[in-house]
Amino acid sequence: MTQISGYDYGTPQAEHSPLTLEELRHLEETVEWTDADADALRKAEPFFRKHAEEMVDSWRARIAKQPHLAKWFVGPDGKPDDTYKAAVKKRFVQWVIDAAVRPHDQAWLDYQEEIGLRHTPAKKNKTEGANTPDVVPLRYLVAFLGPTILGTREFLAKAGENAEEVDRLEEAWTKCVLLHVALWSRPYTREGLW
Amino acid sequence: MTQISGYDYGTPQAEHSPLTLEELRHLEETVEWTDADADALRKAEPFFRKHAEEMVDSWRARIAKQPHLAKWFVGPDGKPDDTYKAAVKKRFVQWVIDAAVRPHDQAWLDYQEEIGLRHTPAKKNKTEGANTPDVVPLRYLVAFLGPTILGTREFLAKAGENAEEVDRLEEAWTKCVLLHVALWSRPYTREGLW
Repeated sequence: MTQISGYDYGTPQAEHSPLTLEELRHLEETVEWTDADADALRKAEPFFRKHAEEMVDSWRARIAKQPHLAKWFVGPDGKPDDTYKAAVKKRFVQWVIDAAVRPHDQAWLDYQEEIGLRHTPAKKNKTEGANTPDVVPLRYLVAFLGPTILGTREFLAKAGENAEEVDRLEEAWTKCVLLHVALWSRPYTREGLW
Repeated sequence: MTQISGYDYGTPQAEHSPLTLEELRHLEETVEWTDADADALRKAEPFFRKHAEEMVDSWRARIAKQPHLAKWFVGPDGKPDDTYKAAVKKRFVQWVIDAAVRPHDQAWLDYQEEIGLRHTPAKKNKTEGANTPDVVPLRYLVAFLGPTILGTREFLAKAGENAEEVDRLEEAWTKCVLLHVALWSRPYTREGLW
C-alpha cells in the first residue's frame, strides 16, 4: 500500500481511546453489530477496494454543493483549501476500506478516537498545518449519515450477488457507519455526557 | 387526543431552539430530507398511529435486555423506575407519530431541543421528579439509531402497498430519525462544536 500522509492507524501517533473494549462491545450490541455484519462487509472487500474512491467522490460532490458543508474546507482566503482537501480525501478513501475490513480491536478503537479529534479544534488542520475552520460541527456529522447510509445504496446494489445479499450488506454498512459516528462524537461531548 | 403528561409540544413550556429555521433547512439538506420524504411519511399516518406503540415496545424490549441501556431507567433502589418508564413511554409513542406527521416548523424545532435536554442533566428526570441517572449518554443515543432505522423495517414492510413504496418509506424514516438525533445532540455538545 502506498503510504498515506497522516494515516496513523495502529501507530503510537494515534490517540488512545478512553473507551474500553468491553464498553465498545456494549456499543456494538446497541447498534446490533454482529459477526455476521463483519463477515458480510469483509466478504465484499474487493468491492470496497474498487469503489471506495467513487463513494467518497459522491459524498464530496454533495459537500461541494452545500455552502454550509463546504465552508469547513475553506481557507482564510475564502477559497477551498485544495491541498488540505486532497490530503483528507486519501484518508477518507482509506477509511471506507478500513470500515469494511478492519477488526474492531484496540487499534481500530484508538483510530476512531483519532478521527473524531481531527474533526474538532483538538486536531483539525494539525496534520496538514492547514488554516480551515477548526471544527466540522457535530450536527452535520450526524446528518451526513443520510448520504453515507442511503447514498451508498446505489453502490452496494452492485456488491451483492442477489437482493438478499445486497440487503445484508446495506444493513451491515448502516450499523458500521453508525458505530463510527457514535465513536467520533466523543471529543465533541461535554464531560460525563458521552 | 388524551392529554399526555409532560408533552409540551407547541407550548411555552418547551425550550426554544438556538437553531434558526434557515439553519434547520441546511441540516435538512445535509440529510437529504425533501418534501417527498415528508409526503411519504404523512401518507402513512394511519400506519404510524396504529403501530407506534408496537414500534416503541420493540425498542424498549431491546433496551431492557441490555444492562448498559436499561441502567438509565433505574432508580436509587437499583430497580427499573416503572412510573418514570411508563410516563416516558407515552411521550415516546407520541414522538413516533409526531416524527411522521408534524411539519418542521418552529414548534417542531423547539420541541426537538426540549427532547434533547430531557436526555441530559438539564432536564432528565425533571418532568416526573424521578431519580434515575441524569443522562442517557450520547454514544448510546447515536448507536440506538441501529434499532430505530433497521429494526423498523419489519414494521414499515406492512406500511407500503408495494416494494417501491416500502423502500421510499424506509428512506424517509431513516432521514427523519437522523435529523432528530442530530438536533437532540445539541445540549450534549461543547460550546462552539455543535
